[in-house]
Order: sequence, then structure tokens, then C-alpha cells
Amino acid sequence: MASIIEPKILKGFRDFLPEAEIERRNLVEKIEASFRSYGFVPIDTPALEYAEILLGKGGGETEKQIYRFTDNGGRDVALRFDLTVPFARFLAEHRSDLTLPFKRYHIAKVWRGENTQRGRYREFTQCDFDTVGSDTAAADFEILLMMRNTLRAIGAGNVSIRLNHRGLFNRFLKALGAAEVSAEVLRIVDKLAKIGKDAVREQLEALGNPGNAWETPLQVAEKILDYIEPKGSFEETLEAITRAAGGPCPESERLALIRRFMVDTGTADSFTLDPSITRGLDYYTGIVYETFLAELPEIGSVCSGGRYDDLAGLYSKEKLSGVGSSIGLDRLIAALESLGKLEGQGSYARVAIACVREEDGGVYQALGARLREAGIPCEVFSEPKKLTQQFMLAEKRGIPWMIIPGESAGPVFTVRNLSTRENREGLSPEELIALFVSPV
Amino acid sequence: MASIIEPKILKGFRDFLPEAEIERRNLVEKIEASFRSYGFVPIDTPALEYAEILLGKGGGETEKQIYRFTDNGGRDVALRFDLTVPFARFLAEHRSDLTLPFKRYHIAKVWRGENTQRGRYREFTQCDFDTVGSDTAAADFEILLMMRNTLRAIGAGNVSIRLNHRGLFNRFLKALGAAEVSAEVLRIVDKLAKIGKDAVREQLEALGNPGNAWETPLQVAEKILDYIEPKGSFEETLEAITRAAGGPCPESERLALIRRFMVDTGTADSFTLDPSITRGLDYYTGIVYETFLAELPEIGSVCSGGRYDDLAGLYSKEKLSGVGSSIGLDRLIAALESLGKLEGQGSYARVAIACVREEDGGVYQALGARLREAGIPCEVFSEPKKLTQQFMLAEKRGIPWMIIPGESAGPVFTVRNLSTRENREGLSPEELIALFVSPV
Repeated sequence: MASIIEPKILKGFRDFLPEAEIERRNLVEKIEASFRSYGFVPIDTPALEYAEILLGKGGGETEKQIYRFTDNGGRDVALRFDLTVPFARFLAEHRSDLTLPFKRYHIAKVWRGENTQRGRYREFTQCDFDTVGSDTAAADFEILLMMRNTLRAIGAGNVSIRLNHRGLFNRFLKALGAAEVSAEVLRIVDKLAKIGKDAVREQLEALGNPGNAWETPLQVAEKILDYIEPKGSFEETLEAITRAAGGPCPESERLALIRRFMVDTGTADSFTLDPSITRGLDYYTGIVYETFLAELPEIGSVCSGGRYDDLAGLYSKEKLSGVGSSIGLDRLIAALESLGKLEGQGSYARVAIACVREEDGGVYQALGARLREAGIPCEVFSEPKKLTQQFMLAEKRGIPWMIIPGESAGPVFTVRNLSTRENREGLSPEELIALFVSPV
Repeated sequence: MASIIEPKILKGFRDFLPEAEIERRNLVEKIEASFRSYGFVPIDTPALEYAEILLGKGGGETEKQIYRFTDNGGRDVALRFDLTVPFARFLAEHRSDLTLPFKRYHIAKVWRGENTQRGRYREFTQCDFDTVGSDTAAADFEILLMMRNTLRAIGAGNVSIRLNHRGLFNRFLKALGAAEVSAEVLRIVDKLAKIGKDAVREQLEALGNPGNAWETPLQVAEKILDYIEPKGSFEETLEAITRAAGGPCPESERLALIRRFMVDTGTADSFTLDPSITRGLDYYTGIVYETFLAELPEIGSVCSGGRYDDLAGLYSKEKLSGVGSSIGLDRLIAALESLGKLEGQGSYARVAIACVREEDGGVYQALGARLREAGIPCEVFSEPKKLTQQFMLAEKRGIPWMIIPGESAGPVFTVRNLSTRENREGLSPEELIALFVSPV
């Protein structure tokens, strides 16, 4: 006999057994339904691309984590590590076939050879949605509204979306004479929740005092710390940071209009203006935001993003402004699980048809067809085992009802509620269907 | 300015623009709904696995086509090239967590570095469905029934499913004294449709006469050609091949019972017993089948499979019999397209809300929320352009209706049918919703 190969999968990769996969699909289907209800349309791109495309200017963490290799044709290729870079390439390549504003979503797997500690996976799913080609408060707000409503639609409960405007922050830094180190400042401030205020002050001070000779580095650091401190209401904070940034400007007006839209949609409670939100990544230029679950804030942001004013710049000369967000499906599922908000579902079938006589398999499938036509998913059992064994199998699958055909395969059936173990006898096919169409 | 990277994708890989992706998703959603209605449950497995697992005993075509590389951790890994091998590994690895019979489906992408001529892709989607652990006529028949009904549910029209039994064929070859070359015979016969009867005869004759000294190789070849020729009705063909195989046996009884199920479900017209169907692959041991569209047979089989009696044998000592099938999504879409059975759909939104005043974006989203709550997907436009431009945008997206808010943003709206260009004026939000909930 041939030797057995040990069945195992790569570290950081996962199989999804039916219950887990049904859970994921239920969630993804609700997310998709929400995206579609706003008129967002799906796209798809290859899992594998030229490494040059995915790495762009190259660099840093990405290069270390990416799955990159030479294919049989000698091409330097890699698995996509996010959905943003392929989307930028897609925009540049298909620009003439797209109508702006382009509102797209993309739900797909990405791969990163990350350290697998701390529950990180090397294969995971991202749910991205973006509007490209409309640099308006309405487009900004729609993404914010979709984040709120999509998370509520999947049962994540109340959310707290914390937003900020990178452009306004940069105006403030310029007024402070610290424009040259703005990227470093944003990266340090981004760590506030993780490392705390004192460490942020220390790191800001260590930047020195690049353009402001009349204050000490500590004084500059204190001003930045004051800027990023929320002041109370959205309006109060907006007023304070507008003043610090040198007075009313397009960025403060954008935030004020977004705030008006929040009030007009009755959703203001879900949003906070938080000047400490910066999203470390370089490419954001407008609003940025993170989303926390009211019942489980400690898990971190489950949905974040922002506006970037030149998304496809690496691949095209046309400037395309976009605003978008990404739901981390795996973190969200972990959160919903720990909140007890996911119910295990073992099957889509609502009823099983028992197998009493093997040769009546066709009769059972004919009944199954009638149930399915009436919209009732049903599993037909194929082996004439003892009924108690068939009850057990249905229960294990999580199917709540069982139809037991008569010995004669005549059109008379018993229906069993597998949780109460009650039977109803002598039903015709019509009665059976009526029973399941109207909730039993 | 930084130089531009040319946006391009790898040969054999594809982007899916919204219209194509909506088409694919509509199709996949119908296929999934059909699978689920039979109680089949989804699973998922990693795109990347140990090469040793995927290649198994290794060999031949697969090894040449597979995307295989060494990851950053020095592991020999590869992208899956089908869903059957990962499923076998999955079964062996999770056997103790699964309840038999296990009915699963898996719809996912696979990768093969194939020659891209003849419309082959290097990244394509397979839709596999299998029942494992029930070696019964009922399980065989259920897969056949699902093939028929799933293809009809997605609008592929009538199908012709041609089936055969590999075990019965092998009995016949044994009776003929040609058991030793059965694998070669099956592979030659599999090419019948492609190379024609004369070439098959020639190749069979070239096999020589391994175990039958009383006939010439040509006589043996003629007997095989006679065996694989359908004789008329299902029953007549079954009778002829049963006789040729040495009389009634479990395999002929299995076919007879499957035939009974076809009659009992009123689906017999969709099935033909065709002894020339062998499916070249070695692992099938029971029934095998291919599916042709009645309106486009020349495109070849869009769904095929069979029963194998030791699916997970490479990874486990436990023998698991399974029966399953696989829909080739890309070939199917090509077929439906050339039959004109796919309608271009540019958006899921049924209505667009025009933007009249930028500062009323919140009011428009509030109306959008009411429509979405009533189950009406709607896109809110974000830029206060000329109405004619907004009509054009909605038309380009394929959205049939447009709501035009009044200048005052008061609760009075106009609805425009974008195809007839008729307006209805002076509607309240309630009237609007009523209009769209009941088909307009």
C-alpha cells in the first residue's frame, strides 16, 4: 500500500468547516446587500499580478511580507496583499470604460506572510468600498453612512466612528512651522491609543523643532497634543481645530457640511470628531476615520479608511480623488463571536426527508422538488437506516424538521419536530407544503 | 514627477468590470441557492498549500502547470489547481468533525499555468459539489438531479446528461480478457467525440491483444466499439451492456435503480445512458457523466464528474466513497453569452436620487434610507450638476428611475422614468415609496 501523506495546511492559513463558512457567507451576503443598496457595484481582479505593479515604489514592510516568486514563464509575480493597489491599477487600466463617479466594492482574499502571532492570518478577507471621482462632502459622508449602516445591518450593534481631516491637520502643522515633519507627526500621533500620551509627547519632542525657532520642541509637542485632544461636541472640537489651523478654510467647511449631513440623517450620535485619528499611511489627504464597536471597543477599529487625492498616480497621469473604507472581516467575526452575536448554523435546509425504502429515492426527490419550488430548502436522505439514526443525523446537521414517508411510499406523510419530538401524522404533500410555507 | 508604471495584468488573468462581475455573481448566487436547497453546505480551503499535498503522487501535466514556489519560510508551496485535491486533504484532516454522508459545495478560484490559447484562462472558477460517505443509487442520482436542475435554474435551458458506469465497463473489459489495459482503453474511448470512431479503432487495435488469444486485436477493438455504441433507449442500452459485461451485477442494478429514480421524478428526458462516456481520469470507479446544453452542444461538457471509491486515499487509511460534479463557470458563461441569455446589468440600484443642492446631501440620504428600508436599492448622486447630465449618468449605470427633489428640499419630489422620459410630479416621500414597492 502506498504511504499516507500527512494532511496538513500552512501556518497562518485556514480551512473553513461548514458552520464557520456559513457564518462567513451570511455575513458577507449582508455586507454585499448593504453595499448594493447604495448603488455600489462589484469588481474583481486577479489574485496574482506583476510584482512591479503590486510593489509600486516598493519598500518596507510590504516587500518583506509579500508572496513573490518567478512563474514558469520567468515573470516576477506576487499574490495581492491588499485590494487598494490592484484597484489603483484597475482604475488606470480601465479608465475609459468607467463612468465617474465610480462606486465599487470588492470582497476578496489577500495574502501576507505576516508573523502569525496575535491571531494574524496569512490569508484573510478584505471588504473594500470606494467612491472615485467625486471630491465632495456628499461622497465623504456616504462612505461614513455606509460604514455605520452596514455594521448595524450585520448585527454589530451601535458603532462609534471617529473621524478627522488630514488636510486640516496639515494646515495646523504648517501654521506651527512643523510642515516638514508632518508625516512623522501623523505617524507618532497615530500610535496614541497604543503607546499613551506621555510616549507621544516624548517622540514628538525628539523630532526637534524644524521650523519654529520661537518655541522649544516641548512647547511644540504640547501644542500638537492640545490639538489632538477632543474638546467636547463635534462643533466645539471643529471650532477649536479650525482656529488652531488658522481659521476657516475648505477643509473646515468640508467637515461642517459633513456634520450637517449627519444631523439631517439623524445619525449624528454615531460620529465623533477626533483630531487624534490620523491613519498612519501616507496616501490619505482628506478625511480619515476609524470605527469601534460600542460593545467591544477594545478589539480596535473594524472598519477604517479615508480620502486620497491621487489614488492611481503610480499608473496614470490623471488625478483621481477617491474616498473609501475597508472592513476587516476576520476581526469583525472574532468580535461578533466574542459578543455571542453569531448563531451556529449547520445547514441551509429547513427540513429533511427520511429514507424509508431505498427504491423510493425518486419519490422522495419528487417531494423534495415540490418543497424546493415552494422555496423550502430540504435535504433528502439516501440511506434506509433506522429512523432514530436518521433523526440524529438531521439534528446533528441542525435541521429542525423531518418528513417521514409512509412504508408504502403513498402520498401520506408524518412530520416530526426534532426539538419537541412531536409528530403530526397523515399529511398529504399539499398539507406538508402549506405547513412549511406558513411558518410552523 | 515620478515615472508611470504601465498598468497591465498577467496573460491568462482577467479583471472583471462591474457588468461582467454582476453577471458572474448573479450566476453564482443562483448556483449556490440551488446547492443549498438540497442541503449542501459550503466549505473553504486555502488558496496556497504545501506542494507535496497538492501534487500527491506527483506527475505529468499537473506538475508542469502548477504555480509552485518556495515561500519566505523556505516551504515548498503551490496554488491549488483544482478543488478536488484540497477536498480530499480536508476530508482526511477533519474526518472526526464531519458527519457522514457529507454533502458539500465549494465555489472558488483555481490556478493553472496553462497554454492560454483556445480561450483557456490561468485563473478560473470551479463550482464543485460532492456527497461523501454514501455509496447509494440515491446519492448518485441526487448529484445528477442537481446538475440538471441547477443548470435549468440559471437559465441554461434543457440539458442532456450522458452517463455511464465505469465499473460495468471494467467488467466488460475483464470478460473480454482486456482488464490489464482498461486504463488505456478508457482513455482512448474518452477521445471518441474528438478524434472519431476510426481513430479510436486504430488506437484500440494498437493496444494489441493482451489477454484474449482467440480473437485478433481488430476483433477486440470492434467489440469495444460495439459496447460503447448507444443502442436506443436507456433500458435497451442497459440491457446490451449488462449482457456484454457478463449479466446482471451490482453495477447494472445500480444503473437500473438510478433509471427508476429518473422516471419517478419525471426527469428521464434529460438523461441518456452513453457507454462511450468514460472521463479519462483514473480515479473514477462508479458512474461517470457529462452534461451538454441542448442549444449549444458543441461547446462541450459544462458539468461533469462521477463516483470514486477512495477519495481521500492519499491522506488517510479510511476509505471514503464519494460522488460529485463540477460546473465550469467560465465555459458556462461563455455559452450563456453566445446564446444571448445574459442581460447586461450595470447596477443593483433601481432608482437614483438627483443632487439639486449640495448642502441637501443629508436630506437626500435620509430619503435614500427610507427607500432602502423598504427594500429598494437606490443610489444618491453627490454632485449638483445639470439635471440632463444626471439623467445621462443614471442611464449609463442602467438605473431605470430618477427622483428629482424640489429646489427647496421640501418633501415634494418628481419621479422620472428614464426610458420613457415621463415625469410624475408633486409626490410625497410616502407616495414615492409606495410607487416603488408596488411595481411601477
